[in-house]
Amino acid sequence: MTSVTCVGLAVLDIVFGVGGVPARGQKTFAQSMTVAGGGPAANAAATIARLNGDARFIGRLGEDSIGDLILDDFAAWGVDASRVRRVSSASSPISTITVEPDGERTIVNYSDPLLFEPDHGLARNDVAGADAVLGDLLWPNGALSAMDLAREIGVPGILDFDHARPVAIDRALTAPTHIIFSAPALAEISGERDPASGLTAIRDRTESWLAVTLGADGTMWLGDGDEPRTAAAFDVEVADTLGAGDVFHGAFALGLAEHRSITDIIRRASAAAALKCTRFGGRIGIPSAEEVDEFLAWRSA
Amino acid sequence: MTSVTCVGLAVLDIVFGVGGVPARGQKTFAQSMTVAGGGPAANAAATIARLNGDARFIGRLGEDSIGDLILDDFAAWGVDASRVRRVSSASSPISTITVEPDGERTIVNYSDPLLFEPDHGLARNDVAGADAVLGDLLWPNGALSAMDLAREIGVPGILDFDHARPVAIDRALTAPTHIIFSAPALAEISGERDPASGLTAIRDRTESWLAVTLGADGTMWLGDGDEPRTAAAFDVEVADTLGAGDVFHGAFALGLAEHRSITDIIRRASAAAALKCTRFGGRIGIPSAEEVDEFLAWRSA
Repeated sequence: MTSVTCVGLAVLDIVFGVGGVPARGQKTFAQSMTVAGGGPAANAAATIARLNGDARFIGRLGEDSIGDLILDDFAAWGVDASRVRRVSSASSPISTITVEPDGERTIVNYSDPLLFEPDHGLARNDVAGADAVLGDLLWPNGALSAMDLAREIGVPGILDFDHARPVAIDRALTAPTHIIFSAPALAEISGERDPASGLTAIRDRTESWLAVTLGADGTMWLGDGDEPRTAAAFDVEVADTLGAGDVFHGAFALGLAEHRSITDIIRRASAAAALKCTRFGGRIGIPSAEEVDEFLAWRSA
Repeated sequence: MTSVTCVGLAVLDIVFGVGGVPARGQKTFAQSMTVAGGGPAANAAATIARLNGDARFIGRLGEDSIGDLILDDFAAWGVDASRVRRVSSASSPISTITVEPDGERTIVNYSDPLLFEPDHGLARNDVAGADAVLGDLLWPNGALSAMDLAREIGVPGILDFDHARPVAIDRALTAPTHIIFSAPALAEISGERDPASGLTAIRDRTESWLAVTLGADGTMWLGDGDEPRTAAAFDVEVADTLGAGDVFHGAFALGLAEHRSITDIIRRASAAAALKCTRFGGRIGIPSAEEVDEFLAWRSA
């Protein structure tokens, strides 16, 4: 089985469905609630498991009951989280998210500074057997050391480059073999509002393969030619975009690990992300390999 | 050991310390977070255990990991929660609370309707051995059947009468032997803004002993005479009032179970609540019996 190691910050997501944004000083009763594991690379790992890959997640959690719960959720999804570091006396991260009827999301997150104290990142045996390594910048040292180790063992190192904690930009641009920017992160790093200009502006600063996800506008990447290429997003009825980017990254990393072509990889990752968007919820909306295959067969017909 | 059975709704409280109220559509990073069990009668049970009573809590929880976590917290506090009902496919209640630097609290709560579907309330063996029974109206059927059972076995039944789910007012006024109103609930039930007028207005509708907690203004109750009596609150430096009412109710119920005099009971309950106010956090701020004794000795000196 193709194996992908995902490195980042795992979170407990508590998502409340509310009629309106909670008014200051008041008590709001939510109409619905879901509790599930979250975090970019963590959701990507769940995606890889759903797509029949061998998924491992490595991150840092507190030695607390919330951390236990996050690990239980990984187990339920078939993600190997046995190498997660537990930091004593740290609190595990929680995000609470209120979702209004129009889809507007307001998020409060707590990430204990103890989880980000100087740490050693990953060791070589953490990535042993991996066919690809994926990292997010919520645990910068973990993700970037994972990118270094991926190069050492000769497998792709994919960085989910989104707004995150302070990070050494040049190192983050050069350590990965593949970088997938969020549109806001690319704009910030490149100083260009236009994604095509942004990718082109970054090209001189790194030898990494570069892409940017544009939501409903699809995916843009720099191929061999001078001009960025774009793959349209699948047109679906969107119920909830939460976690769609994470699903894309997970499917992308698995596709690279499986040595598929870039166009095939992006097509499959876009399909997985589109299917996720048709369902409410983050991790609970991740489609299976069979669902992605069916969707692609149907859309090709 | 004196035994008190507490009946109500147990909740997981996630309390975030934030610089300002989260702006709609934005992501706010909290500076601190505490995760602890909460709920009025549930916190009262923790108080009774801290005051060296034998505390039992009975409520309804989902059969989920959050429910397990709430039960673990009871165990850590020495509260017997073995009679808690687990409702399959229900979610256990969560409250997330953002606290701003000036102490302003904004709360989002989810309580699964499945927890409030028609239920049988308590059975007689649930209160076996209890020297007093305390209920809150977040689980109306549970609390009011507990009041009935307290009368049956000849022990005090104390109702924490606060704003809550829809409830049959006349039944809630007559089932308990003792009612402690919150000031807003008394105003609403009596139609009187002034607490003394409120208590007097209610007097004709019930034979229960009646009191109202007034925060920094102390406690007012109807004694044998015509005029309400008032006990001042202890003057302390307030850090956080969260849970202070619950502590008062717990100490009050234990005092009744121990057959203390009303003035002694209110004095001890006020001391316990005042000590709680000097500490940040809800359940984690509950004082021990020794701390209450010391405080009272010091304040009497």
